[in-house]
Amino acid sequence: MFNNADMQEARDDAQATAVNAARRARVSTALGARTDTGGADAILVSNLVNVRYLTGFTGSNGAVIVWADADDRHADRISTDGRYVSQVAAQSPDLAAEIARDCPKALLEYALTRRPGLRVAIEGDAMSVSEFADLKRVAEAGGAELVPVRAVVERLREVKDPAEVEFITSACRIGDDALAALIGRGAIAAGRTERQVARDLEWEMFALGADAIAFETIVAAGANSAIPHHRPTDDVLQAGDLVKIDFGAVSRGYHSDMTRTFVLGEPQDWQREIYEIVASAQRAGRDASAPGADLASIDAAARDVIVAAGYGDYYVHGLGHGVGLEIHEGPGIGAAASGTLPVGATVTVEPGIYLPGRGGVRIEDTLVVADAGPRLLTTTPRTLRVL
Amino acid sequence: MFNNADMQEARDDAQATAVNAARRARVSTALGARTDTGGADAILVSNLVNVRYLTGFTGSNGAVIVWADADDRHADRISTDGRYVSQVAAQSPDLAAEIARDCPKALLEYALTRRPGLRVAIEGDAMSVSEFADLKRVAEAGGAELVPVRAVVERLREVKDPAEVEFITSACRIGDDALAALIGRGAIAAGRTERQVARDLEWEMFALGADAIAFETIVAAGANSAIPHHRPTDDVLQAGDLVKIDFGAVSRGYHSDMTRTFVLGEPQDWQREIYEIVASAQRAGRDASAPGADLASIDAAARDVIVAAGYGDYYVHGLGHGVGLEIHEGPGIGAAASGTLPVGATVTVEPGIYLPGRGGVRIEDTLVVADAGPRLLTTTPRTLRVL
Repeated sequence: MFNNADMQEARDDAQATAVNAARRARVSTALGARTDTGGADAILVSNLVNVRYLTGFTGSNGAVIVWADADDRHADRISTDGRYVSQVAAQSPDLAAEIARDCPKALLEYALTRRPGLRVAIEGDAMSVSEFADLKRVAEAGGAELVPVRAVVERLREVKDPAEVEFITSACRIGDDALAALIGRGAIAAGRTERQVARDLEWEMFALGADAIAFETIVAAGANSAIPHHRPTDDVLQAGDLVKIDFGAVSRGYHSDMTRTFVLGEPQDWQREIYEIVASAQRAGRDASAPGADLASIDAAARDVIVAAGYGDYYVHGLGHGVGLEIHEGPGIGAAASGTLPVGATVTVEPGIYLPGRGGVRIEDTLVVADAGPRLLTTTPRTLRVL
Repeated sequence: MFNNADMQEARDDAQATAVNAARRARVSTALGARTDTGGADAILVSNLVNVRYLTGFTGSNGAVIVWADADDRHADRISTDGRYVSQVAAQSPDLAAEIARDCPKALLEYALTRRPGLRVAIEGDAMSVSEFADLKRVAEAGGAELVPVRAVVERLREVKDPAEVEFITSACRIGDDALAALIGRGAIAAGRTERQVARDLEWEMFALGADAIAFETIVAAGANSAIPHHRPTDDVLQAGDLVKIDFGAVSRGYHSDMTRTFVLGEPQDWQREIYEIVASAQRAGRDASAPGADLASIDAAARDVIVAAGYGDYYVHGLGHGVGLEIHEGPGIGAAASGTLPVGATVTVEPGIYLPGRGGVRIEDTLVVADAGPRLLTTTPRTLRVL
């Protein structure tokens, strides 16, 4: 092992080894249960986030092969390149490793030695057309067949285990505390630029132990707040502005996501009006986020409030998305979404109203779906706050 | 337009419109010149970096279709989703835009209305197997054929125009100045952690106008410096340590990349020895980076110095890579590389010696290949510096 952080990670991964093995076992089961896998003997996982989920390995190049038969659990194998020899041994001590630059190729060749002419599922969402063409040549040379499949691991990742919920919770706490600290020292104020506020907030999150920023921090003031997806500029915050802040932290690989909108000085009536509508819609969306709830109906619960208030045309995106090892993952909560909300899912609820040229309001929380119902992981108050 | 930064970007993009159109014209020519494109009528570019290169558009979802015939230049079209309507109009004023979530699909449908049953090249390196399968259904429904191709735009991007070199130069200057500032105030010192030094350096780059960090800053002290690819930890810098710092800034979308290695206090003989060997190897690699030079021979020029000194086994990576809109792009300079170094290429030269458990040295510069020979864009001194 080569440094303290990785030592730490290694210890944790040793504890997590059983969890990772259980996740691979679930992948095997899913592989057998799905009809689109053509009875594959194994799945070659090359999406690095999925690799981390199934092995604990966090390097920038790697893949893992998971066999379909329960009897083959011991034959699952990981691959990475020479830079990560010691890291993979520490993070994935239960898996033999193929050391090679082209990890999918190395694992396919290993699989061919073990079961000539096998059928291997590959992650169609993660592998490029070029990579697939190259791998297919190797497969055909060995009489093997590649079967592109979708979202096998992603589907499993939608339901978080207690450790994952704990990591997301601490990422959310870092976000709450960082924002509170910023407000506490008056860093969100007229005269400062969007960029300064964003940098301060990110600095605060690092100081509170964030491993990384979850995504490019959004600080949008005045008319900019009407842009759902705005990048901080040198524009100066002005008295009377709505200030929309959408940000998150990463802790142990897991993300948080929260949006709050403030007013600098006494709110004007239109600002207060859209804020209250969004707050009601967000509450309705949270309340609707019950175990087993239809995803589209959750979106509708929030959207109906905004539409009924006459602002439907100014709410231009979906209600929310899953949060975990990625800032955006399943389940997606939108008008066109299908499926239901499982217990253990961690999702955002983030309706908004955006009035072009004037300003916008979005309120977003990250919550976990418990048997008892939605439990908020982001806790900063949602009432209109004047700064 | 929705904010100052984008206003600025918009003005610049307006000036750059002619450049972008000329780049698309070169894509057309390349499409006709290549033998692997099956006489495609057009290429559907979906790699966002390539989209930016050909259109100026910087949104997070988009694609552009470029026609093969010169007469069709006017029919090139961009696509992005509803979030970017005003941004795309400002950044790509010369292109009509299809507004849709699925940009490749929207552009393919547009292309089908213009030329039923056409052949469309797609970027095999950028499109996933799943995306390709979905797009193929649309193509076949319209009697069109998709032809996966590789590195059509990437190949063109290897040669930078003067504006690009200027952006890379200013990114490099930010790196030089940030490191100088850090050294100036004694921020690289025993008692501080790798993470603190990394954060300070990144903060300094932002203060100097960086739009972003080029990649996760590497600060590796003591034995950690022997890990080529090390992430900053809470390990404390100690007197006598080698401290390897590999970092870069992003300016106007373009990256810089530089590595310097310092010693905290009086260097030991072995530290001085490997430092001088790496410095000689790096100089040899820079001198070999002449217009038209064989890429593998450039790698050899540096590697031979290290091998001759008996440290060949401790130099475990290639010599360098192209730098531009991406931190790693073509041309790759390594032992197995084929091809030659074109005038206008911006590349790194970064040999190293890594002694496991003891420490390592890497010295890296970014340079541009001019007719007169290599011109350094990173200028921090390369002589062994004691801090």
